[in-house]
Amino acid sequence: MSTTAARPRIEHALAGALASASAPGHPPGLAAALRHAVFPAGARIRPQLCLAVARACNMDDPELALAAAIAVELLHCASLVHDDLPCFDAALVRRGQPSVHCAFGERLAVLAGDALIVLAFETLAKGAGQSPRRLAALVTTLTAGVGMPCGIAAGQAWECEPDIDLARYHGAKTGALFVASAAAGAQAAGADAAGWVNLGARLGDAYQAADDIRDVAGTAQWLGKPVGRDAALSRPSLARERGLAAATRHFECLVAEAEFAVPDCPGAASLRALVREESQRLIPRRLARELVASAN
Amino acid sequence: MSTTAARPRIEHALAGALASASAPGHPPGLAAALRHAVFPAGARIRPQLCLAVARACNMDDPELALAAAIAVELLHCASLVHDDLPCFDAALVRRGQPSVHCAFGERLAVLAGDALIVLAFETLAKGAGQSPRRLAALVTTLTAGVGMPCGIAAGQAWECEPDIDLARYHGAKTGALFVASAAAGAQAAGADAAGWVNLGARLGDAYQAADDIRDVAGTAQWLGKPVGRDAALSRPSLARERGLAAATRHFECLVAEAEFAVPDCPGAASLRALVREESQRLIPRRLARELVASAN
Repeated sequence: MSTTAARPRIEHALAGALASASAPGHPPGLAAALRHAVFPAGARIRPQLCLAVARACNMDDPELALAAAIAVELLHCASLVHDDLPCFDAALVRRGQPSVHCAFGERLAVLAGDALIVLAFETLAKGAGQSPRRLAALVTTLTAGVGMPCGIAAGQAWECEPDIDLARYHGAKTGALFVASAAAGAQAAGADAAGWVNLGARLGDAYQAADDIRDVAGTAQWLGKPVGRDAALSRPSLARERGLAAATRHFECLVAEAEFAVPDCPGAASLRALVREESQRLIPRRLARELVASAN
Repeated sequence: MSTTAARPRIEHALAGALASASAPGHPPGLAAALRHAVFPAGARIRPQLCLAVARACNMDDPELALAAAIAVELLHCASLVHDDLPCFDAALVRRGQPSVHCAFGERLAVLAGDALIVLAFETLAKGAGQSPRRLAALVTTLTAGVGMPCGIAAGQAWECEPDIDLARYHGAKTGALFVASAAAGAQAAGADAAGWVNLGARLGDAYQAADDIRDVAGTAQWLGKPVGRDAALSRPSLARERGLAAATRHFECLVAEAEFAVPDCPGAASLRALVREESQRLIPRRLARELVASAN
């Protein structure tokens, strides 16, 4: 299965997970808020990473790998909904449409984040029917990616601290779920996660660097969300601290490191292609060249 | 193990779960907010119910039963933190101390709720080492208790709908986690949950009825939180709709039904004692007599 072929499966499985949340008896407003939080699709890079690693590890339980991938994406969507809340980023737009709290109100946005976190673990457990012995490790991996002490919630909480260690902040807010995505892909295939952690970490770093660059150099139309938010919110940003040229060179190093971090295995070529493809989507080569040249 | 003896084990295990969230690298503000959300202890009725049912089912894996009980309580605490937020109940006091958002700000309160949900599933997975095949059913049970379509998040979301079905609202907001607590106790012991659902449902109904009554007839000092909130927030309330005397009679019927719902088993007497003890704590007999008499 190629990288591209995974996308329709991911969308279909996400729709299926949301359908279970809309089973009879549900409050319609929250069900609509959940759909709004998950669709239309973002880049879906984390579930693609998860599935690509599972394939590289001789995926023998595709149902579990897909469930892990979907769980990762639901957790990511939950973090976006809460991150957009008025008390955090007060973001009005996300993926080119009103953010969840703008469309459905703050209460349903808080609940949508909660319900998506819960749905992630529900989806994972439902997918573990053939390989129940893999579930505990998968739950542990995903909780590490989003909880305390070093997952997404911890990362967002660093924004509330007077002193922020930039590496720790980015590692928790962005890197941890990339690491979890790669590790969960391996674990869903019954493989050891250890060999895949570095790929997730480097890709997470690259993604965060790109996010900082795009927030300075991008346009709202391209990104589907407002730009200049890091400066407006006084959030730490590599691109603002070191300049766009240095940040872009750093991004390119991280992408190279991520490619290098793919262990030799049958699916290595496809995984490295995914890394390059995603880096192109994040910072198109032409833009990267312009940004690096801007320092000269 | 008696009901009372379970309390210190529950507190100790909750402290252990929070310690894991405070492992090196954590943001200190969120770690403190988590402790504030979980301690000092509330009634801990849900984890006690979970453990009592596990004992009644010949608990053969005490570690898993305790993990399930702790997970249930962490999910309950998470729901309180988010329910107290300014956009919901705007509660200033909880368990006799400032609510989490009052003490730590709205951002850390949102994150504390998220992190507690995540910690619940992490704790559950860690406790499943001896009985990995029981984990999927337990995760499914707990997610049903707190997520969509009929768990706590759904219950809170009904408050955002123009038309509320009172039974469905209370069933989701309060009943679902009681049902999950009883069911998880059975599943943690390797037993079928079906025989225990009714006990959880009746106890949940009784608890909700008591909550409505206490909000009208209680004092802030007794409850450790403000009273009169249902009226102030225009929330549906049995005690306001039918009057205190009728609501109290209804409560007493529900307690009797809960006792009756305990299946015949070795631990039945202890479980029925727990139900009676908890009903006394909720609405002391003397108060119940006064309330029923008030209608005459």
